[in-house]
Amino acid sequence: MTQDFKHMVANWFTTLQDQICTALEKTDGTGKFREDKWERAGGGGGRTRIIQDGAVIEKGGVNFSAVHGQLPDIFRKNKEFEGETFFATGVSVVLHPENPHVPIIHMNVRYFEMDEGKKAWFGGGIDLTPHYFDEEDARHFHRQMKSVCDTHHPSYYPEFKNRADDYFYIHHRQETRGIGGIFFDRLQATAEISLADRLVFVQSVGTSFAPIYTYFMLKNKGKQYSEREKQWQMLRRGRYVEFNLVYDQGTKFGLETDGRIESILMSLPKQAGWLYDFQPEPHSPEADTLAKLKKGLEWA
Amino acid sequence: MTQDFKHMVANWFTTLQDQICTALEKTDGTGKFREDKWERAGGGGGRTRIIQDGAVIEKGGVNFSAVHGQLPDIFRKNKEFEGETFFATGVSVVLHPENPHVPIIHMNVRYFEMDEGKKAWFGGGIDLTPHYFDEEDARHFHRQMKSVCDTHHPSYYPEFKNRADDYFYIHHRQETRGIGGIFFDRLQATAEISLADRLVFVQSVGTSFAPIYTYFMLKNKGKQYSEREKQWQMLRRGRYVEFNLVYDQGTKFGLETDGRIESILMSLPKQAGWLYDFQPEPHSPEADTLAKLKKGLEWA
Repeated sequence: MTQDFKHMVANWFTTLQDQICTALEKTDGTGKFREDKWERAGGGGGRTRIIQDGAVIEKGGVNFSAVHGQLPDIFRKNKEFEGETFFATGVSVVLHPENPHVPIIHMNVRYFEMDEGKKAWFGGGIDLTPHYFDEEDARHFHRQMKSVCDTHHPSYYPEFKNRADDYFYIHHRQETRGIGGIFFDRLQATAEISLADRLVFVQSVGTSFAPIYTYFMLKNKGKQYSEREKQWQMLRRGRYVEFNLVYDQGTKFGLETDGRIESILMSLPKQAGWLYDFQPEPHSPEADTLAKLKKGLEWA
Repeated sequence: MTQDFKHMVANWFTTLQDQICTALEKTDGTGKFREDKWERAGGGGGRTRIIQDGAVIEKGGVNFSAVHGQLPDIFRKNKEFEGETFFATGVSVVLHPENPHVPIIHMNVRYFEMDEGKKAWFGGGIDLTPHYFDEEDARHFHRQMKSVCDTHHPSYYPEFKNRADDYFYIHHRQETRGIGGIFFDRLQATAEISLADRLVFVQSVGTSFAPIYTYFMLKNKGKQYSEREKQWQMLRRGRYVEFNLVYDQGTKFGLETDGRIESILMSLPKQAGWLYDFQPEPHSPEADTLAKLKKGLEWA
């Protein structure tokens, strides 16, 4: 890869961050992003953007970073990361809405290079975590994901949908985090697909984010909810915290390599809760939601 | 060790659990423990006791377990655990009070045997996590811990106090979880100290718990607090969640060996919170508390 490529990718990610923040602010109506620029001691830095106490989004972040330097020791144990220097850039989004009928969403798109491009790949994904399962929303979300994938390769959606089911899984609860989505990693250049083609796919994923999530914001923000639904939201957020602190690879990597903690942990909600052995009433909306937190369900 | 020893230890732990629950219920006034007995597929089981929405204790657990069987594979990687079969018993306590002026407390006392006692040791500790630092309380707590330790060996308190500072440390925040306490592990029999002596020490630690914590409950439960102090409590509980899910060895072990999840995660609070990059005002009680969350401070 030419050195221009990685800068072009990073530059495109900053544009994506701008576009997502603009769309979210417009749709939220009152929430505004606060920006913190930061630098990494070993090389590079980022632009963290956080929204809190908006009309729809209670807490969330849309973060850009582009870091480089000597490969951290923790990577060297992993054969996939053989090399001396690295470059990594990406955009990460997590949004926790105030209304329990609006789903939590997460997106990450990233590009990684070893030794000035001797190895290079893209990764990322989008997954949706409704507090309350809504079949229409689940179908809409997965059809959007399938449509984004199908334009690029017929194998993408089924493959990346299965990987999302496996990745966004809370092993100790035997529950998926939400209704999944797509997850992909190590999309390198092949004989048939160039790295530029991979970028075009990742750009499609990235640009799909704002229309998809603002659709859910607008559709569900006006729905009434009670104290009971708010309490259930706290418990679902508790599960989100469990996933992010126990399993999420990006979070682990950030914590272990002395990343910027406040940027990494922007994924945690303003409030979350745990009740001992909470069992929803049979056939309640809460029990119906739990029944959908399984691998292998098809929504597209 | 004779086979009688481990049963005697386990039996004593059930008595300790009873004693702590009785003292806590009496001091709380309204909260009652709910008991769930459970069995482990591989051998043994436990008695989980949870209190929720008491007058003083918002959520907490006092758990007993005694499990045995083939050593789980995850242990076999660790040379310290060479052997085929194991026996482990202990009592674990975590209490999250409703009033931010009452500290969070944690205690664990445990006994571990490999291959029918070919190797055997005790471990455990008590640590205190005030939402608001109070010097008088900190001194009282550490003096109690020192007094318990000094009766048994002059090296115990300084050694176990330092180990608590190191263990109850949130690396990614560069903060201790609270004001520490004591932490010890692998207390085996030596030429000078028998395993029975070790048990007597662990019994002293265990029986010190109820008087120490009920003292803090009674002293601080009536203190007034505002919305601001409640919000700070949520943030401190958020840190507690981070420690338990990212670093706590007992939690990790439980999650990785398919332990009873609701018993393990009783340590998580009813509500916790995260705000982006929250910075307390200089010289506020919140800032003063943060300044005390450091290793190596002496309170005894």
